[in-house]
Amino acid sequence: MCGIIGIVGITEVASALYDGLTVLQHRGQDAAGIATVDGSRLRLHKGNGLVRDVFNQTTMSRLRGRIGIGHCRYPTAGSEGADEAQPLYVNSPYGIAFAHNGNLVNTDTLRKEMFEDDRRHINTDSDSEVLLNVLAHELQIQERMAITPDNIFKAVAGVHARAKGGYACIGLILGYGLVAFRDPNGIRPLVLGERVTEEGREYAVASESVALDVLGFKRLRDIEPGEAVVITDDGQLFSRHCAEAAVHAPCIFEYVYLARPDSMIEDVSVYKARLRMGEKLAQKIMRLRPDHGIDAVIPIPDTSRTAASALAGALGVPFREGLVKNRYVGRTFIMPGQGDRVKSVRRKLNAVDLEFRKKTVLLVDDSIVRGTTSKQIIQMARDAGAKRVYFASAAPPVRYPNVYGIDMPSAHELVAAGKTEQEVEQMLGADWLIYQDLEDLIWAVQDGNEDLQQFDTSCFSGEYVTGLEKDYLQQIELMRSDDAKAARRIA
Amino acid sequence: MCGIIGIVGITEVASALYDGLTVLQHRGQDAAGIATVDGSRLRLHKGNGLVRDVFNQTTMSRLRGRIGIGHCRYPTAGSEGADEAQPLYVNSPYGIAFAHNGNLVNTDTLRKEMFEDDRRHINTDSDSEVLLNVLAHELQIQERMAITPDNIFKAVAGVHARAKGGYACIGLILGYGLVAFRDPNGIRPLVLGERVTEEGREYAVASESVALDVLGFKRLRDIEPGEAVVITDDGQLFSRHCAEAAVHAPCIFEYVYLARPDSMIEDVSVYKARLRMGEKLAQKIMRLRPDHGIDAVIPIPDTSRTAASALAGALGVPFREGLVKNRYVGRTFIMPGQGDRVKSVRRKLNAVDLEFRKKTVLLVDDSIVRGTTSKQIIQMARDAGAKRVYFASAAPPVRYPNVYGIDMPSAHELVAAGKTEQEVEQMLGADWLIYQDLEDLIWAVQDGNEDLQQFDTSCFSGEYVTGLEKDYLQQIELMRSDDAKAARRIA
Amino acid sequence: MCGIIGIVGITEVASALYDGLTVLQHRGQDAAGIATVDGSRLRLHKGNGLVRDVFNQTTMSRLRGRIGIGHCRYPTAGSEGADEAQPLYVNSPYGIAFAHNGNLVNTDTLRKEMFEDDRRHINTDSDSEVLLNVLAHELQIQERMAITPDNIFKAVAGVHARAKGGYACIGLILGYGLVAFRDPNGIRPLVLGERVTEEGREYAVASESVALDVLGFKRLRDIEPGEAVVITDDGQLFSRHCAEAAVHAPCIFEYVYLARPDSMIEDVSVYKARLRMGEKLAQKIMRLRPDHGIDAVIPIPDTSRTAASALAGALGVPFREGLVKNRYVGRTFIMPGQGDRVKSVRRKLNAVDLEFRKKTVLLVDDSIVRGTTSKQIIQMARDAGAKRVYFASAAPPVRYPNVYGIDMPSAHELVAAGKTEQEVEQMLGADWLIYQDLEDLIWAVQDGNEDLQQFDTSCFSGEYVTGLEKDYLQQIELMRSDDAKAARRIA
Amino acid sequence: MCGIIGIVGITEVASALYDGLTVLQHRGQDAAGIATVDGSRLRLHKGNGLVRDVFNQTTMSRLRGRIGIGHCRYPTAGSEGADEAQPLYVNSPYGIAFAHNGNLVNTDTLRKEMFEDDRRHINTDSDSEVLLNVLAHELQIQERMAITPDNIFKAVAGVHARAKGGYACIGLILGYGLVAFRDPNGIRPLVLGERVTEEGREYAVASESVALDVLGFKRLRDIEPGEAVVITDDGQLFSRHCAEAAVHAPCIFEYVYLARPDSMIEDVSVYKARLRMGEKLAQKIMRLRPDHGIDAVIPIPDTSRTAASALAGALGVPFREGLVKNRYVGRTFIMPGQGDRVKSVRRKLNAVDLEFRKKTVLLVDDSIVRGTTSKQIIQMARDAGAKRVYFASAAPPVRYPNVYGIDMPSAHELVAAGKTEQEVEQMLGADWLIYQDLEDLIWAVQDGNEDLQQFDTSCFSGEYVTGLEKDYLQQIELMRSDDAKAARRIA
Repeated sequence: MCGIIGIVGITEVASALYDGLTVLQHRGQDAAGIATVDGSRLRLHKGNGLVRDVFNQTTMSRLRGRIGIGHCRYPTAGSEGADEAQPLYVNSPYGIAFAHNGNLVNTDTLRKEMFEDDRRHINTDSDSEVLLNVLAHELQIQERMAITPDNIFKAVAGVHARAKGGYACIGLILGYGLVAFRDPNGIRPLVLGERVTEEGREYAVASESVALDVLGFKRLRDIEPGEAVVITDDGQLFSRHCAEAAVHAPCIFEYVYLARPDSMIEDVSVYKARLRMGEKLAQKIMRLRPDHGIDAVIPIPDTSRTAASALAGALGVPFREGLVKNRYVGRTFIMPGQGDRVKSVRRKLNAVDLEFRKKTVLLVDDSIVRGTTSKQIIQMARDAGAKRVYFASAAPPVRYPNVYGIDMPSAHELVAAGKTEQEVEQMLGADWLIYQDLEDLIWAVQDGNEDLQQFDTSCFSGEYVTGLEKDYLQQIELMRSDDAKAARRIA
Repeated sequence: MCGIIGIVGITEVASALYDGLTVLQHRGQDAAGIATVDGSRLRLHKGNGLVRDVFNQTTMSRLRGRIGIGHCRYPTAGSEGADEAQPLYVNSPYGIAFAHNGNLVNTDTLRKEMFEDDRRHINTDSDSEVLLNVLAHELQIQERMAITPDNIFKAVAGVHARAKGGYACIGLILGYGLVAFRDPNGIRPLVLGERVTEEGREYAVASESVALDVLGFKRLRDIEPGEAVVITDDGQLFSRHCAEAAVHAPCIFEYVYLARPDSMIEDVSVYKARLRMGEKLAQKIMRLRPDHGIDAVIPIPDTSRTAASALAGALGVPFREGLVKNRYVGRTFIMPGQGDRVKSVRRKLNAVDLEFRKKTVLLVDDSIVRGTTSKQIIQMARDAGAKRVYFASAAPPVRYPNVYGIDMPSAHELVAAGKTEQEVEQMLGADWLIYQDLEDLIWAVQDGNEDLQQFDTSCFSGEYVTGLEKDYLQQIELMRSDDAKAARRIA
Repeated sequence: MCGIIGIVGITEVASALYDGLTVLQHRGQDAAGIATVDGSRLRLHKGNGLVRDVFNQTTMSRLRGRIGIGHCRYPTAGSEGADEAQPLYVNSPYGIAFAHNGNLVNTDTLRKEMFEDDRRHINTDSDSEVLLNVLAHELQIQERMAITPDNIFKAVAGVHARAKGGYACIGLILGYGLVAFRDPNGIRPLVLGERVTEEGREYAVASESVALDVLGFKRLRDIEPGEAVVITDDGQLFSRHCAEAAVHAPCIFEYVYLARPDSMIEDVSVYKARLRMGEKLAQKIMRLRPDHGIDAVIPIPDTSRTAASALAGALGVPFREGLVKNRYVGRTFIMPGQGDRVKSVRRKLNAVDLEFRKKTVLLVDDSIVRGTTSKQIIQMARDAGAKRVYFASAAPPVRYPNVYGIDMPSAHELVAAGKTEQEVEQMLGADWLIYQDLEDLIWAVQDGNEDLQQFDTSCFSGEYVTGLEKDYLQQIELMRSDDAKAARRIA
Repeated sequence: MCGIIGIVGITEVASALYDGLTVLQHRGQDAAGIATVDGSRLRLHKGNGLVRDVFNQTTMSRLRGRIGIGHCRYPTAGSEGADEAQPLYVNSPYGIAFAHNGNLVNTDTLRKEMFEDDRRHINTDSDSEVLLNVLAHELQIQERMAITPDNIFKAVAGVHARAKGGYACIGLILGYGLVAFRDPNGIRPLVLGERVTEEGREYAVASESVALDVLGFKRLRDIEPGEAVVITDDGQLFSRHCAEAAVHAPCIFEYVYLARPDSMIEDVSVYKARLRMGEKLAQKIMRLRPDHGIDAVIPIPDTSRTAASALAGALGVPFREGLVKNRYVGRTFIMPGQGDRVKSVRRKLNAVDLEFRKKTVLLVDDSIVRGTTSKQIIQMARDAGAKRVYFASAAPPVRYPNVYGIDMPSAHELVAAGKTEQEVEQMLGADWLIYQDLEDLIWAVQDGNEDLQQFDTSCFSGEYVTGLEKDYLQQIELMRSDDAKAARRIA
């Protein structure tokens, strides 16, 4: 996934965009970029690496302007190259810079149309570049010289009619302003905030509310599914629903793992949702094994800590930080190629032996994807002297690939794909493996906002809200395997 | 402070040194270096920045050899320049590479002797360079062509006779082996470990046991105060006490803040010591305000989490992660100049409003040094809607500078210097400020190892175990002020 | 000025483009770039600096493909920023990469049209970006899905109808091939060559024939004024004259200074033209001062060497390399700001005293622009002991700015602007100053190709073959002054 | 070979050292470094690459001080690594920075003594590091605390007694001053100059007088063979002959190829010596083939231009610049590995066809080493249409390796080793090959200074003035072959 942010301010915005991106950095550590509008010029700087490595005093000082957007990227299908850092830019019509979080599921079709009908060249494998060009084309076919909110809304409607998938986007239209929109199902999040200063009113749009908080913006509301918001250079805000009514199905994985706990998504506190996940897990444990004999609940840092502490509280068992994370090594998820991944856990986590020795411990993680890390941690717990090692996942078994912008491995690399929970338990080497039930997970989130009737839970259920083209999953399978990634990197 | 590590292995050691340094990185993020012995050559690479930034595939591949040392540095007095990354090197006698953690308090005297008597040029302000040259000189005046453990021990004894302060050191003597030693009071930590592989026995020495754990070495014991350990190229280990009997006084701040929780120092688990600090704090709170009315205990991440969770448990109050740390911004301690420091907290921490609103919260930190950060966090808690904000420090008031290798500010920048606890409470804006009592802190550590009779607690008590030269503290005061640092950086 | 090159090959072209650019590097040392077509992808790498500094093994290995273009840039008006390195790229229509040598004189008008009529955003001050977008727009308004040589020629005709100035251009149209064209007056040079290998026929287009020679291509002919050449991906070549008949007026400064001596431009050998310039100068000297008493002819390295040796031969006076150039310092022309320029001569040239002492020397330069360097060299000759210092310029007085792509200073910085030759002689401090007569210069070039009836000699004569918009020269004056450049660099 | 420079100034010297190094850069383009004395500190910056690439504003601004030395390096035996850039530094005794031009022929013996007797570690293969440590050791064994000119002269005498080979050296002794000395045979050059400013008298020492000229220093004289010059911090100059009387035998290759034409070496103008080489060659040609039928004399740029122009004058044949050098490609000599070398000529030189077509041309080079380049240029001349291609070398056949600091290939890679001139002529494919006779070359230099009785002409004659240890040439042979170099680079 990625993090995106856009600001229409009264004064210079580059450092606010920078700070906002560091706060969204957990959504993508692969590349980062900022674009600003400096008079009639677009200023753009982007590169591979963390925000703090991509920008320096010199590059920041060139990003002048009071309107801008930023992006941080996590590698999704086909986007590993250096060229594909965002914001992207096309100069016709008007000059548009663009930041996108999500993934399209009809990229191939669009790419073909783009070439044959619209004569626009797409130079990368990135579906974001396709999406930007769909938007550009739809803007181009509006009436000449009549750039108005109405025309922009029509163009976004055109995008919705053509693009299928999950997408939250922010575009910068030179000489006009900023446009932000979400896919008709509202799969990927996007929030709107404002800050009123003495000089006037400023607006910001971001993937997560926490970016608004840190910059001192007040969260107004989520951008709605299918809605587009236009904020002009002079600070006027317009909005319109640009898609036909569709099921509202936000990605439930945001609550499980992706989002920061201090974010509000769809009016639900991620932090509270995770506490409820822990409570639900505790109920299941009590139900299945009232005499569980657990001596300590130990979170696998960092994401699972919230759920684990609520779980421990509900069980009445001590909560212990028995695993210490080495802050100076990258996280497992990002490391490419299974080879490295195997060895890396030991460099990233260390067990406090005293918390394991002769104890029955319950390790808690937010979810289990490949299972490689979990298996090693369970072994680490045994090496540290644990008597019994139980393992709880705050999410149900991950059995299907995510196609809406989360970089999950291909299905055959998911440990639970096609397996029963008992088989997974055995593969991981746990004495007991407890998965959250899907209805409990849904409840844990829904309890924060009764209006949410549905979620994208495809990686658990295999049901894709947008529908998928025939063979799409098979293509994904080929493209996402470690071998395929290694081949692309060499290229 | 700094982190140091040395290995005499059977096979190549560079990647183990690298991994070890990443695990010790919390002790110093300012610079890093590795030196190895490749046949008759010393291979050395070092630079400013994090371990992961200083080394790359090319530089690592040059660090051949099965014996080596590594260092990561935290800026101490006078060591901000790029030249002063370690390991340091002198080519006479023998060729010696050297890594040092600590600080000398008679550097000026030694520097003078070095120039006048030993004709050795010291090219930096670093006391480590002075210490290396004392060692080199003491080795040089031993009998010619007779490098033996005995001569090395005599040289270390010569170092102890001349150097005053806290120092844990690892030296690499080309063509011979490795020597590791600690100051006679054992102020700075150093542990010895071994790993037995099919090819033979390997030894490692490191600042903290956690580095041994991660590399799969078994911790044998702490190097003792005044002891030197020599490990020859062919894997023989010799040891001897090289100093006259002296008070054993390990730095208590290692337990409070510096060390990783999963380390054992002087046979005391840092993690357990912190749990006990939390329990002792809880007792004090119960004693002073039985009806404290605290709704939630909220740690200031990351160091205080252990103590805070024990404190919450002992109080029977919920433990809540109400402050979320932005992992992608540097930590406050390192940032130079008060100006930046003020603004940076907001970019580093974010409050989960739900955990504060209308509650009486107890914020817990490991210690309070400048107070700047604490004050802002207290304000942040109020802004998040807290009814009352209590603040607990797991350590007593820091009133005196540390002179043994911890980069504390000058006395006049310590918020508690010359102030009562009530005055500090007022300055920070807390509704209640609770400091740990010094005897409770000592008990919390001592309870893990009854043999420890004394500690260096100078920054709390003002008593310096090595004694200090007249005017030394005043010099430190001048050198460490923010203004002085800024001036040096410009130069 | 700039150097451009394009190749449609049978095998990989990146290294040939690289070598070609190093051969054209004398035309621009400010920035360099290469674009290739790799399947359906455009590969592009560019940056500030010399060709050898901009590219490395990694960047080269990514420039796959058997069709590509390259560019090296000399800073012209408004192009000092890093963004403006070429090739430039637009993705609509088709995807076009573009390299341009020259300068337009109606950029402001075009820029306005581009925005108002074509809705294309121009993001830099570069007239090359304007020209590319004119081309893109003209291609876009051709019939849909019918990219043919005919349509491309129509688009180029559209460019000629709108753009005014000097321009030699190479464009890469993705999925189709390469197009090369020159302005209707043929001001800037462009040659076409071919290489027949066992695998088939390859075509190359370049600013100077020397680039073809070094790559083993045979020079076929110059691209004609107003002509466009299209070479398709599969190696078919089409050409057509796309402009109305206009005066053919190649830039005479190419022969004086810009081009390499081993190039053929408009079927004239630059080397031979320079020999003739020397002979003509000798005739003038013999005419004016038959008893000149010159002891040695000394060229100011490197450009003037050819003319000076012919001059010496014709006078029957020894030709001596009395000034030695320091190869490791940049050349004066490029250094921005008068301040540095004054001091730099001494670091770049050194006099062999023996060749000056007590002699009457004739220093020869290709031309005199600002006069700063000439003045210092004359003083250097005196310091070396010369009895009399004569100075000859192989070109007439430079009194007017060049507006077709040569980065000359603004008029008020030209030493000869508004001055008689005697006044210049006095300012430079020469004992005698001899300028070439304009008719002699024209003859020296024309003698190589009788078909050449006219030249752009505007910097000598003040007559501009394309005509100029009102106030254009005044704008140039403002933009090119050293103060203006310094201001832009800071921004 | 290398270039060295040292200055004891009144004001800051870093930029003068920088400018001086750019002027000496032709002596070594591989690495560069500057060391200055800033109060009691040594400031040192060095790195691989050209002077202009190694230093930037930041690094220069740190090189404070009014005393300093500089070095630029050409790779000699064993010095290809990055660690071996100079100045080198040892901190005991006193702190000594050191720059060396030349090569020792008893390095192995010295290295052994250094380890066994002096307990000094030599960490590289560089003989310069050995030489520095010999100097350091000899200084260390002088009386304690009595650093005086006398003691320094004694130490240099100690160096002369132990070191064998060619060496010109400049050392910086911290807290004292600068010492410069040449080997007893005066093989490598070193000149002394002064500059008197209003603030006082400044001294400079450099490899070539041209560096003094450019900095505005007046050349006083060459440092004599075996002489040492000490210049103290406060500007006092002392000198003494520190070696027993020995044959004065300057390297004749300096005049042939290495030195800049505008330098004076041993009171001989390099420029004039080259003119005389051309005249002598003309005499030989006239003697051997009075009816030579040569239409044009064409120099192979740049070094041979001086000799070629005198040759052309003496023959009464036109001198033509028929080969144009591409200034933006590196020179052949430096490129490692025969593979690249073969291809590179074509990228570096281009023929002006008109000067060759149907002509009998005489190509002139300063010398012929491997012959690879010469062979290709001869072929290039034929391809350009030459009727007959004659080739003249201003030096005799190079048949033996140089061991005094010039990086020549191993004997078996020298085209003339073990071959007659006729055999070389055939290998190169020339219609006629003319070598300078050795006595003529000697005369050409000697004519400028009758006092010079002998030269090091070893690469022509195989006679080594210092004598060589048994098997030394065979070791060199192994170490210098292209294969050996390639192996070292990989390591």
